[in-house]
Amino acid sequence: MKGFGMYSVGNVGWIDADVPTIGALDALVRPTVVAPCSSDTHMSHGGSGPKENLILGHEAVGIVTEVGADVKLFKPGDVVVVPCTTPNWLAKGAQNPISNAHDEGLMKSFKFLGAKDGVFAERFHVNQADANLVHLPENVSPEAALMTVDMMSTGFHGVELADIGFGDTVAVIGIGPVGLMAVAGAALRGAARIIAVGTRPNCVAVAKEYGATDIVSYKEGDIAKQIIALTGGGVDRTIIAGGNAETFAQALAMTRETGTIANVNFFDVTETLGFPAYLWGLGMANKSIRGGFCPGGARRMEKMLTLIAAGRIDTTRLITHKFHGFDKIPEAFALMDSKTQDLIKPIVYCDGIA
Amino acid sequence: MKGFGMYSVGNVGWIDADVPTIGALDALVRPTVVAPCSSDTHMSHGGSGPKENLILGHEAVGIVTEVGADVKLFKPGDVVVVPCTTPNWLAKGAQNPISNAHDEGLMKSFKFLGAKDGVFAERFHVNQADANLVHLPENVSPEAALMTVDMMSTGFHGVELADIGFGDTVAVIGIGPVGLMAVAGAALRGAARIIAVGTRPNCVAVAKEYGATDIVSYKEGDIAKQIIALTGGGVDRTIIAGGNAETFAQALAMTRETGTIANVNFFDVTETLGFPAYLWGLGMANKSIRGGFCPGGARRMEKMLTLIAAGRIDTTRLITHKFHGFDKIPEAFALMDSKTQDLIKPIVYCDGIA
Amino acid sequence: MKGFGMYSVGNVGWIDADVPTIGALDALVRPTVVAPCSSDTHMSHGGSGPKENLILGHEAVGIVTEVGADVKLFKPGDVVVVPCTTPNWLAKGAQNPISNAHDEGLMKSFKFLGAKDGVFAERFHVNQADANLVHLPENVSPEAALMTVDMMSTGFHGVELADIGFGDTVAVIGIGPVGLMAVAGAALRGAARIIAVGTRPNCVAVAKEYGATDIVSYKEGDIAKQIIALTGGGVDRTIIAGGNAETFAQALAMTRETGTIANVNFFDVTETLGFPAYLWGLGMANKSIRGGFCPGGARRMEKMLTLIAAGRIDTTRLITHKFHGFDKIPEAFALMDSKTQDLIKPIVYCDGIA
Amino acid sequence: MKGFGMYSVGNVGWIDADVPTIGALDALVRPTVVAPCSSDTHMSHGGSGPKENLILGHEAVGIVTEVGADVKLFKPGDVVVVPCTTPNWLAKGAQNPISNAHDEGLMKSFKFLGAKDGVFAERFHVNQADANLVHLPENVSPEAALMTVDMMSTGFHGVELADIGFGDTVAVIGIGPVGLMAVAGAALRGAARIIAVGTRPNCVAVAKEYGATDIVSYKEGDIAKQIIALTGGGVDRTIIAGGNAETFAQALAMTRETGTIANVNFFDVTETLGFPAYLWGLGMANKSIRGGFCPGGARRMEKMLTLIAAGRIDTTRLITHKFHGFDKIPEAFALMDSKTQDLIKPIVYCDGIA
Repeated sequence: MKGFGMYSVGNVGWIDADVPTIGALDALVRPTVVAPCSSDTHMSHGGSGPKENLILGHEAVGIVTEVGADVKLFKPGDVVVVPCTTPNWLAKGAQNPISNAHDEGLMKSFKFLGAKDGVFAERFHVNQADANLVHLPENVSPEAALMTVDMMSTGFHGVELADIGFGDTVAVIGIGPVGLMAVAGAALRGAARIIAVGTRPNCVAVAKEYGATDIVSYKEGDIAKQIIALTGGGVDRTIIAGGNAETFAQALAMTRETGTIANVNFFDVTETLGFPAYLWGLGMANKSIRGGFCPGGARRMEKMLTLIAAGRIDTTRLITHKFHGFDKIPEAFALMDSKTQDLIKPIVYCDGIA
Repeated sequence: MKGFGMYSVGNVGWIDADVPTIGALDALVRPTVVAPCSSDTHMSHGGSGPKENLILGHEAVGIVTEVGADVKLFKPGDVVVVPCTTPNWLAKGAQNPISNAHDEGLMKSFKFLGAKDGVFAERFHVNQADANLVHLPENVSPEAALMTVDMMSTGFHGVELADIGFGDTVAVIGIGPVGLMAVAGAALRGAARIIAVGTRPNCVAVAKEYGATDIVSYKEGDIAKQIIALTGGGVDRTIIAGGNAETFAQALAMTRETGTIANVNFFDVTETLGFPAYLWGLGMANKSIRGGFCPGGARRMEKMLTLIAAGRIDTTRLITHKFHGFDKIPEAFALMDSKTQDLIKPIVYCDGIA
Repeated sequence: MKGFGMYSVGNVGWIDADVPTIGALDALVRPTVVAPCSSDTHMSHGGSGPKENLILGHEAVGIVTEVGADVKLFKPGDVVVVPCTTPNWLAKGAQNPISNAHDEGLMKSFKFLGAKDGVFAERFHVNQADANLVHLPENVSPEAALMTVDMMSTGFHGVELADIGFGDTVAVIGIGPVGLMAVAGAALRGAARIIAVGTRPNCVAVAKEYGATDIVSYKEGDIAKQIIALTGGGVDRTIIAGGNAETFAQALAMTRETGTIANVNFFDVTETLGFPAYLWGLGMANKSIRGGFCPGGARRMEKMLTLIAAGRIDTTRLITHKFHGFDKIPEAFALMDSKTQDLIKPIVYCDGIA
Repeated sequence: MKGFGMYSVGNVGWIDADVPTIGALDALVRPTVVAPCSSDTHMSHGGSGPKENLILGHEAVGIVTEVGADVKLFKPGDVVVVPCTTPNWLAKGAQNPISNAHDEGLMKSFKFLGAKDGVFAERFHVNQADANLVHLPENVSPEAALMTVDMMSTGFHGVELADIGFGDTVAVIGIGPVGLMAVAGAALRGAARIIAVGTRPNCVAVAKEYGATDIVSYKEGDIAKQIIALTGGGVDRTIIAGGNAETFAQALAMTRETGTIANVNFFDVTETLGFPAYLWGLGMANKSIRGGFCPGGARRMEKMLTLIAAGRIDTTRLITHKFHGFDKIPEAFALMDSKTQDLIKPIVYCDGIA
């Protein structure tokens, strides 16, 4: 079969691979709509070290083509939503109530990106189908569902980590697709004022639609200083959904005592995260710093999808570009890699798979 | 001065009373807009035992007329929002992180109803002004603010007790003003499907505006059975905002294992609350039952008001009847007592106070 | 093979059964030491409805005799501790962070008692061995480990549900083996004063060893009144580990506003649990009522066992009677059924299995 | 009156000062036993910037000599325990459920050190006596109580921040008096293995008495590496109760994914706290970093004292040096400043005050 991925660091293209074999608990899925993500492009540039002949992609809605002998809830032909995080539920780490993302160790539940071939393929493998897949609900579009598997689940995890109370003032740093979902999630979690930090006009427009009450731009000066001025002292909660080590220190600075800084941004492996001790009240400010990875599994997906089904959120506002044809994956991937001004999230309808 | 209240159980009317004296930390306030509440009418009928010559009322926005020597944040002329719960912050019970409603014992923080004269008076007393009052924010109307002091704070407390997670299915039993606020609060807290239980057409209409996705009526049969059928097994969270002992048992029945039942309904002192053990999984279902009183204080008020200021909620949808003139309080009170079909919440503008 | 169980309601004895067959993820285990539990005897009397030819028992330490093809962490000969609750980790209910006891519905994770043959057999079946079994740690005795699989895990769950803070006053109602573990757990969780309710002298003695500071007896009058008098108003937290519907109401009465009542007692299916509304502050007291089933799985077992290994608790103080020989199970079972004065917990060393 | 403090940075000695005047809610207290703390000596060296003619000291048990007109619970002659943190309960920050330490801003509830004269004086001022003081319980010694007001409350706050679950493995970095209380608190909170990091022999001995199962020394190499080796991958929870910026990074390194790092150490104002991003899973490890200041007030003190009264902890194991006579404060202070090998905590009985 054919899949799109990386031959080696810096080289992407179509790869010939065997159709994955599945175990008794697993499923084989043909993608119907997929989306490239910046972690795919990041990996293609070597962000997770050298990889060879690896099919990329971890955001997909698809159709089951084959199931293992012990799969009970799915059969070939079922339309399924595939979480980007698919824990091995038989590993002890998946029994940890804090997060299911670390089944056999740090982020090991994230299997599509690097641990095996991904979803940009004619067929892809899903471990423990009954525990990880969900049927596409009747009143949710495939496109809307596709935005839940990583973007919404990750952005909403940022909101969960931020531990927002009714009426809190919240800053969201970064308004790419994950940050926009964090904005929407904060509004759905009881935040009052939401200050979104970003500059790209279409992201700013969507941020406002999702509930941002204020916009702060990096271009206007130090964002921490701006936000402290705007709020008369800082925010209750900050969600980091973009940026670098400098952003991390700014997040500390803009958050009041007793506040929480919640991170869902991937920092670079070469970075050191730090902040002057006085921004943390010398360790005494009761400011919490939390950061986590997108939770997965079927229950998580259901919770996200039911919010769409109930009309609480329209995730399709993230989708700025639509490509038709499995063969358009490289084009969508290149677009994601270049991050043009008008891009939030591209998707590809996988028509044309044999 | 003049105030409206109860001469004795069953007899209400205008009462002549001395203007309250204030201590060094307290304030004296003249109401500008007030609202009768069913706990006022309940008390007038003897719901809290015999009371004589007691001024009623605990929902008010007003103007400060006098402050004690140690009050720092307020001065005569300030327009203030007055929480119905005004803890004595110097009592140990107010240091309890679970609730500030029980400063010196059960519900003792609720001082306006019964412990002293209430707000239906030309002047009323507010203990510990700096800790309990807030200035009316510029972009919040007095009417909107008035709906926060008990209705919103109580309804949202129901939501907080329910411990809602993203995507949960929530039932709200009772869609009087508190139940409607619970519907709105559940939507703002990440609930997906919200099933409101009630019948009155205008309440149903407002429930839908506030986010109810389904309406269930007592008139169509047992509400637990209806909700179990509607959801294929029950809801994740139930908020009780009306009803009686039967309702309590129904709430247990309609809530799934690992769910939460949250109560903000006043049950009658003569009632016994109970449920067949099997509805609670014989004690093993990990279903939590919680119930609490409206939290108060300045911080609480600010959190509620900032949600209005940020445009997250329009509390004025509760207001169905407006009376103009301090002398109209008896009329508004009688309306609340009769609970006509078209009533949600009446308010009285207190023009005409000397 | 031979197993001890119930032919029908009220009739117990040895049963001939086939050796269980195991799936790819499962293990077959030969018990080395087992303990009868009151839920076994309760079932034999029809407590869970009619059952026929069912092997009983759900507390065991044993030796693996066979593993399925996909089991990775265990092999024949391994000495293992077997939690009484063994969730199907592939079911969505097991992804619920609140409890793993309800994998496919209410208490469905409790598979040994009724859903399949239990552990009082020459061989018994364990589902999903890697996720449910743990190796017996080197510095933990089999007897001590045996007390964790239900007694300690259940008693400590009561403590977890009670949400104890440092310095809280805690009542534990019932000081059978689960209640005693709740006493020990409360002391290990930061309770200050612990009031144990019970009468049997050896249970009282062990309760004191485990940290009870006060003992209250049913025989001296209403336990709620006694505890209210003793504490000047009631306790912060109450754990129910024995009793009936009356006990439930007493627990409400003896717990202060903002307190928690935590239940790990099995109530009878015919009972109605209830309390006068005023004991719950008419619904306003911010008293939480929680009740749950023993959590299971490998991670839970490890957490319990590591407390023993670190010397924090000696669970063997529960063991009052030791029987040697697999054929002594009926005798131990009869003892548990009769609940003699000097009994806390009997165990049986399963020597003599073929 | 006479008090011991700092004339200026680096110069300490006896200061003549007026007896403090008290407001209607306040009390005046004569110390009976006090303890110098490293934050006193730190301040004397300029750690909080230049200060002049400031009486030091914030750990005291004493006798009330005068109360304000509105104090209800205390009268002259009462023996009282004085928390080092005495919030202004009328400030909005004190209504924050996360911490009462930041009433009017960062650490503003800590009034004895720098905001006014401290407790090393013939008389000292206590704000809001009813809300901040507690009577010395009958069965708690003054010395034991003295150790709660900062050492135990701070160390136990570290434990609370660490969010320990039953059976967790916990590292405590630093075993001065606060770290030792953190060890004791972790054992009382359900930790299994407790790894204490320190070297001084008498601290090591007390750490073991308080529940440490393992001791790691800085002198044997990098503590993170040692602890990772000892635990096969790291601990669940880490409490930082001593050290510097390097310690902070080590704490991140030694804590597993989903773990918590809890800080109660004062970092230096000149330090930058940081860690390589990969130690935090690039932001994805679900490792929480929390740090906070000693909570105060009467309720907090009661919770600490009741643990002593119930026999759960003997805080007097911290006391290594006892001085008799108010005039010995300089000597005790000098000892604390020099931190001799055999010192944990010195106390001074304030005999000889006029």
